[in-house]
Amino acid sequence: MASESLEDIKKTINERLPEKVQVAKIEFEGPQVVIYTKNPEIITDNGDLVRNLAKDLRKRMIIRSDKSVLMEPEKTIETINQIVPEDAHITNVSFDDVTNEVIIEAQKPGLVIGKYGVTSRDIVRKTGWAPKILRTPPIKSEIIGRVRNTILSSSKERKKNLTELGSRIHQSVKYDNDWARLTSMGGFKEVGRSCMLLQTPNSRVLLDCGVNVAGPDEKTAFPFLNVPEFSIQDLDAVIISHAHLDHCGFLPYLYHYGYEGPVYCTTPTRDLMTLLQLDHIDIAHREDNPLPFNVKHVQKELKHSITLDYGEVTDITTDIKLTFHNAGHILGSAMSHLHIGDGAHNMVYTGDFKYERSRLLEPATTRFPRSESLVMESTYGGHEDVQPSRNKAEKELMKTIYQTLNRGGKVLVPVFAVGRAQELMIVLEEYMRQGMIDEVPIYIDGMIWEATAIHTARPEYLSKDLRDQIFHMGRNPFVSDYFVKVQNINERKDIVEGDPCIILSTSGMLTGGNSVQYFKWLSEDERNAIVFVGYQSEGSLGRRIQKGMKEIPLENDEGRTQVYNVRMQVKTVEGFSGHSNRRQLMEFAKRIHPRPDKIIMCHGDPYKTVDLASSVHRSYKIETKTPLNLEATRLQ
Amino acid sequence: MASESLEDIKKTINERLPEKVQVAKIEFEGPQVVIYTKNPEIITDNGDLVRNLAKDLRKRMIIRSDKSVLMEPEKTIETINQIVPEDAHITNVSFDDVTNEVIIEAQKPGLVIGKYGVTSRDIVRKTGWAPKILRTPPIKSEIIGRVRNTILSSSKERKKNLTELGSRIHQSVKYDNDWARLTSMGGFKEVGRSCMLLQTPNSRVLLDCGVNVAGPDEKTAFPFLNVPEFSIQDLDAVIISHAHLDHCGFLPYLYHYGYEGPVYCTTPTRDLMTLLQLDHIDIAHREDNPLPFNVKHVQKELKHSITLDYGEVTDITTDIKLTFHNAGHILGSAMSHLHIGDGAHNMVYTGDFKYERSRLLEPATTRFPRSESLVMESTYGGHEDVQPSRNKAEKELMKTIYQTLNRGGKVLVPVFAVGRAQELMIVLEEYMRQGMIDEVPIYIDGMIWEATAIHTARPEYLSKDLRDQIFHMGRNPFVSDYFVKVQNINERKDIVEGDPCIILSTSGMLTGGNSVQYFKWLSEDERNAIVFVGYQSEGSLGRRIQKGMKEIPLENDEGRTQVYNVRMQVKTVEGFSGHSNRRQLMEFAKRIHPRPDKIIMCHGDPYKTVDLASSVHRSYKIETKTPLNLEATRLQ
Ligand SMILES: [Zn+2]
Ligand SMILES: [Zn+2]
Ligand SMILES: [Zn+2]
Ligand SMILES: [Zn+2]
Ligand SMILES: [Zn+2]
Repeated sequence: MASESLEDIKKTINERLPEKVQVAKIEFEGPQVVIYTKNPEIITDNGDLVRNLAKDLRKRMIIRSDKSVLMEPEKTIETINQIVPEDAHITNVSFDDVTNEVIIEAQKPGLVIGKYGVTSRDIVRKTGWAPKILRTPPIKSEIIGRVRNTILSSSKERKKNLTELGSRIHQSVKYDNDWARLTSMGGFKEVGRSCMLLQTPNSRVLLDCGVNVAGPDEKTAFPFLNVPEFSIQDLDAVIISHAHLDHCGFLPYLYHYGYEGPVYCTTPTRDLMTLLQLDHIDIAHREDNPLPFNVKHVQKELKHSITLDYGEVTDITTDIKLTFHNAGHILGSAMSHLHIGDGAHNMVYTGDFKYERSRLLEPATTRFPRSESLVMESTYGGHEDVQPSRNKAEKELMKTIYQTLNRGGKVLVPVFAVGRAQELMIVLEEYMRQGMIDEVPIYIDGMIWEATAIHTARPEYLSKDLRDQIFHMGRNPFVSDYFVKVQNINERKDIVEGDPCIILSTSGMLTGGNSVQYFKWLSEDERNAIVFVGYQSEGSLGRRIQKGMKEIPLENDEGRTQVYNVRMQVKTVEGFSGHSNRRQLMEFAKRIHPRPDKIIMCHGDPYKTVDLASSVHRSYKIETKTPLNLEATRLQ
Repeated sequence: MASESLEDIKKTINERLPEKVQVAKIEFEGPQVVIYTKNPEIITDNGDLVRNLAKDLRKRMIIRSDKSVLMEPEKTIETINQIVPEDAHITNVSFDDVTNEVIIEAQKPGLVIGKYGVTSRDIVRKTGWAPKILRTPPIKSEIIGRVRNTILSSSKERKKNLTELGSRIHQSVKYDNDWARLTSMGGFKEVGRSCMLLQTPNSRVLLDCGVNVAGPDEKTAFPFLNVPEFSIQDLDAVIISHAHLDHCGFLPYLYHYGYEGPVYCTTPTRDLMTLLQLDHIDIAHREDNPLPFNVKHVQKELKHSITLDYGEVTDITTDIKLTFHNAGHILGSAMSHLHIGDGAHNMVYTGDFKYERSRLLEPATTRFPRSESLVMESTYGGHEDVQPSRNKAEKELMKTIYQTLNRGGKVLVPVFAVGRAQELMIVLEEYMRQGMIDEVPIYIDGMIWEATAIHTARPEYLSKDLRDQIFHMGRNPFVSDYFVKVQNINERKDIVEGDPCIILSTSGMLTGGNSVQYFKWLSEDERNAIVFVGYQSEGSLGRRIQKGMKEIPLENDEGRTQVYNVRMQVKTVEGFSGHSNRRQLMEFAKRIHPRPDKIIMCHGDPYKTVDLASSVHRSYKIETKTPLNLEATRLQ
C-alpha cells in the first residue's frame, strides 16, 4: 500500500544496499522513490538489486547522482562523444542540474543505451551524470521541441511539485475504503466532453476532461464541472486516456482555475495533446470565440504532467494505483486500470479503444490483474454498426485512388490530423511501394505533418509490424519520399495545377482548414475524387457533399459567395475507424479477463449506449449501467 | 418565482392596501411576508384583500400589529375573557413581544376564532394584539408543553433566524435550472436511515435524516453524510416526512455540527419527532451507548423548525417550492411535492405512506399539480406482500381478545408508541363500545400515552370519521374511560395480579421497555395471550416468541437469568401496517396524477425494491430506478 512512509522505505533501502554505496539522500518525487548517491555506478552496475528492491517495495525507483560526483559539463560532453558510437547520431546534449541528469538526444537512442545498458552505465561511471536518453525524431517536431524545453526549463518547479505530491501520496490512508463511486461529468449518453470523477473515502480522481468541439455553447461543449461533489481544490489527480480533444480539451481550464496537481498520461498523449490543445486555442482565437484558457495554461499543464508507460504500476493517491494498458485507438491511447484500496476494488476505464489490430497499433488489451467494474465506450454500440473489415476498406480505397489517378485526376482525402491520417499514410506507402498504385506524390498538409513527426518520435508505441520495419529492417514508412510536406498557399496552388496526386488535409469534415480550400479548387473537375474515410457530423460541409449535394455556395478567395458545382467523384470508404465496431465491442466485453461484475457504458449516442448495454446484459449476464451526465454510480 | 425581491413586494403591497392602512414595516420572515401595521383591524376585517394579495404575490402573508397599538397585557387578558365565550375553556394566555402576538390556548380553539373568524378579529380590533390560537389537548401532553415553551422563549432568536432565512430565500436565482438530481444518502435498497439530497444548480435540500436503530455500528446506523456532494454548511433546508426515527432520528446531529437552517415538517411531526428523539437519546444513554448529539440539539432543532400544513405552498429556497400532502402513514406524515425552478421540474417524495383508509387517517393523496419524477417507498414491494384486509385483521384480533378474556386471561399487545398503538386504541374503543368484546380496562403503558396526547392535540390531521366524532358528535375516542394510563411498577404489578384486561405496551418487538416485563409476568399462564400486530425484526425477542420458541432465558427482577416458559397463547395478526401493501403500492403508482416520467424506489429490502420497480415498469411502462446508497440519480 501507498501508506508505507518515507522513513520505512529509507530504512529498507539502507539495509538492502551494499555497504560501500554512499546514499546521500532518499526522496519521494511524485510516485517515485529517488536515491541520490555518491557512487551511482555501483547501483547501476547491479541492476537486479534495484529491480528487486523496487519490486519488494512496490515502488518505482530512480537512481541519481549526488552533486559532489558530477563531472564538469564540457568535459562530460567530450566523454560522452568518446563513449557513444558515432552511428547514434547525438543531436543535442543538455544538463538538468536539479535532477543531476544529462539529457542526450540521439537519432538512435538504442546505441546510447548500449547492449543491456552497457554504454549508458559507462557514461555514469565516467561522468557521474545519470543519462536521460531521448529519441530525436527523424521528422523534426516543433511540438516535441517545445515540450522538452518547457519541461527542462521548469525542472526546479517540477521538482518542488513532485516532492510535495510525493508526500501527499505517501500519507497514511485516512478512511476505510468501504465504497467507491463514479460521477459522470460529461460524455455519458453522448459523444464529446468525456469526463468522470472517481471518488473513494480518501481520493478524488478525474478521468479525462474533454470538450465537445461541436457544442454550440458552454453548457453543451464543456463538462459539468459544477457538479456538487467536484471542486478543483480537492482534486488529487487527473488521468488522460488519449490526446483527442473530446478527452483532454478542457484540461487547461483546470490549471487556469487553480489546479496544482498532476496529470497522468503516456508520453505520446502528452505530446499530441499539446499539439491539439494549442491548435484548438488558435482556431478559437481566429474565430473570435476564445476559450476560457490560453497557451499559458497548456504550459502549466505540461509542467504538472507525469508520463507513464503501459504496464507501469503507479501510486497516484493514498489509496489508488494506476496502470495504463494499450487501447489501440491512437498513438499512446491508454486504458486505465485503477486498483483501489488494498484490493478493495478494481476498475478499468477503456477510454476510446479498438479491439482489432490496425496498421498503426496493436489491438486493445483484454487482460487485467483484476477488474470488478468496467467503464467502456459505446460509440459504435448500435446493432447496425457493422463496418466492413479493414482489408475490404483498404481495397475499396485503393480502387478509387487507382481509377482517379488513371484518369488523370487528383484524390483529396479530408482527414483528422491525429490517428486516421497516419493509418492512411502507412496504407498508401505500402500499396505504392508494392506497385499496386502509381507512384505519385502524397501531399501532407497542415497539422498532419506535425502529428506524424510525433509518431516518429515514439516508435515504441506502434504496432509490432511497424516496430519490426523501423528497428530491424531500418525502414520507417513515415519518412518515405512519397510524402511531401505542404507549407503555404503557393505550394498548394502548384499542387492543384500540377499532375495527379493524393492530398491528405485537415479538417476531416471540411469544417475549416485547407481541406475546404482544396475542395473549392478541385470540385469542378470530374477527373478528381474526394474520399471520406471518417465520420461526418450532421450539418458539416463534409456531410452535405457526402449526401450528394451538387451545388455548394461558399465564400471564394475574393470574399464573395460563389456556387461550386460538385463534378468530382464523391466516395465514402468505411472501415478505417479507430473505434471498435459493434462486433468488436461485444467481443471485448466477452473476452475481458477477469470478467467484471458491472459494466458502465459511456461515449455513445443514447440509443447506441442502451443497445450495447442490453445486448451485453442479455448475452453475458453481466450487470450493465447507462448513467446520464450528473449521475453518480456506485462501483463498490 | 421566489426571485421577487422584498422591494418589489413592498411596492405592490403599498399600492394595493387601502390608503387609511398605516403600514409600519414589511419583512420577510422565512418564507412568509409579514406586514406590521398600526391598524391591523382594517386588514383583518378585509380578509379577501389579504388573500388576494397573497395569491397574486404567491406568498404566504401574515398581518401583525405595530408595537404602538398594543393594549397593556393585563387589560388584554381581561378583554379576551370578555369577548371569548366561556365554553372555549381558555387554559392559558401569553404574549410574544417579538411578534406582537397574544397566544391563546383553549380546549375549544374554534370558539376563540369564532364563525368566519369574527371573534379573533374582535380581539385584534379591541386589543391590538394578533391572536395565535392553540388547542389545549384533552389529554395533557408534556411534550407539547415543552415544545411550546421552547418556541415561545426563543422567539427573539427565531425571529432573527427567520429574517435571515427570508432574505436568503428571496435572493434572485443565480444559475439556470437546467438540471436537478437526487443523491441517495441512506434508506435505498434497505429500510432505515432514510436520507436523500436534492440538488439543483441553486439549492441543496435534504429530504429526511433518519437512523437505523437496529444498525450495529455507525457505518450501518447513520446516513452517509460523508458523500462528497454533501456539506452541512452548504445545506439550504431539511424536510422531514414524518416522525419515525428512520426518517428523523439523525436530524439533531446536523444541528450539533453547525447547521443553522430551517427544518420543515407538519406540526404533529414536530411534536412526535421531539418525543421520539428525546426517547432515543434517553435509551442510548441508559444503554451506555450514547448518540453523537444530545437534548440541546433537539432544542436547537425546535428553534429552527418551520411547520407547514398540508397544501400550503412555500418557498424554501430561491428555486424550490415545497407543498406537503397527506401520506396516510402516521399522524402528520407527509408526501413532499417539490416544484423546482419556474416549473422546470416537479418531484414528489412519498415518505412512508398508506394508500388505504385506516381508522386513524385518510388514505395517501394521489393528485398533484405536476409530478415528473416520483420517489416512493417499497417496504412491502415484494410479490408475496399481500396482507389481509383491514377488516379481516380487526376480526382476527377481536376473536383472540374475546377468547382470551372469556377464559379469564389477559391480552398483551407489544406495540410501537406512535401510529399502530393509536390505531389499535380506536379499534378497541369501537368494538368495546359496541359490545363486541367485554368492557375491561385497556392499559396504556409508557410512551404510548404521551403519543396519544399529541394525537388529541391535532384532531385536524385525523381521518374524516374521527374528526366527525370529535367535532360534531363531541366524542373523542382517545379520552374514553376504557383507557387507563399506567405510570409505575406498582400499578403494573396490580394489573398483572388483577382481572382480565388488555395491555398496550412498548417496545413493539420486545427489545426493551415494559412489554418485556409484562411478558415475563404473563407468559407462564396459559389463559393469557400475546398478540403481535407489527413487524418483528430478525433476532428480536418478539421474533423468537413469534416463531414458537417455548423456553426463553431472561434476566429476572433479581438480576439472575431465569428460563420463562411460554405457556400463553402466541398470536400474530397481520394487516395493521401503516405501510401500503404490494397491491396498494402498485395501485398508487398507477393512480398518481399526473403520471410521472420516472419512479425512483427507496425504503425496501433490495429484492422487494427491485421486484416492485420491475413490476411497475412492466405494467405501466414508466421508467423505474433502484439506486443504491451513495448513488446520484438525475431527475431532470
Ligand atoms: Zn478518441
Ligand atoms: Zn472520444
Ligand atoms: Zn435484465
Ligand atoms: Zn414510518
Ligand atoms: Zn420508514
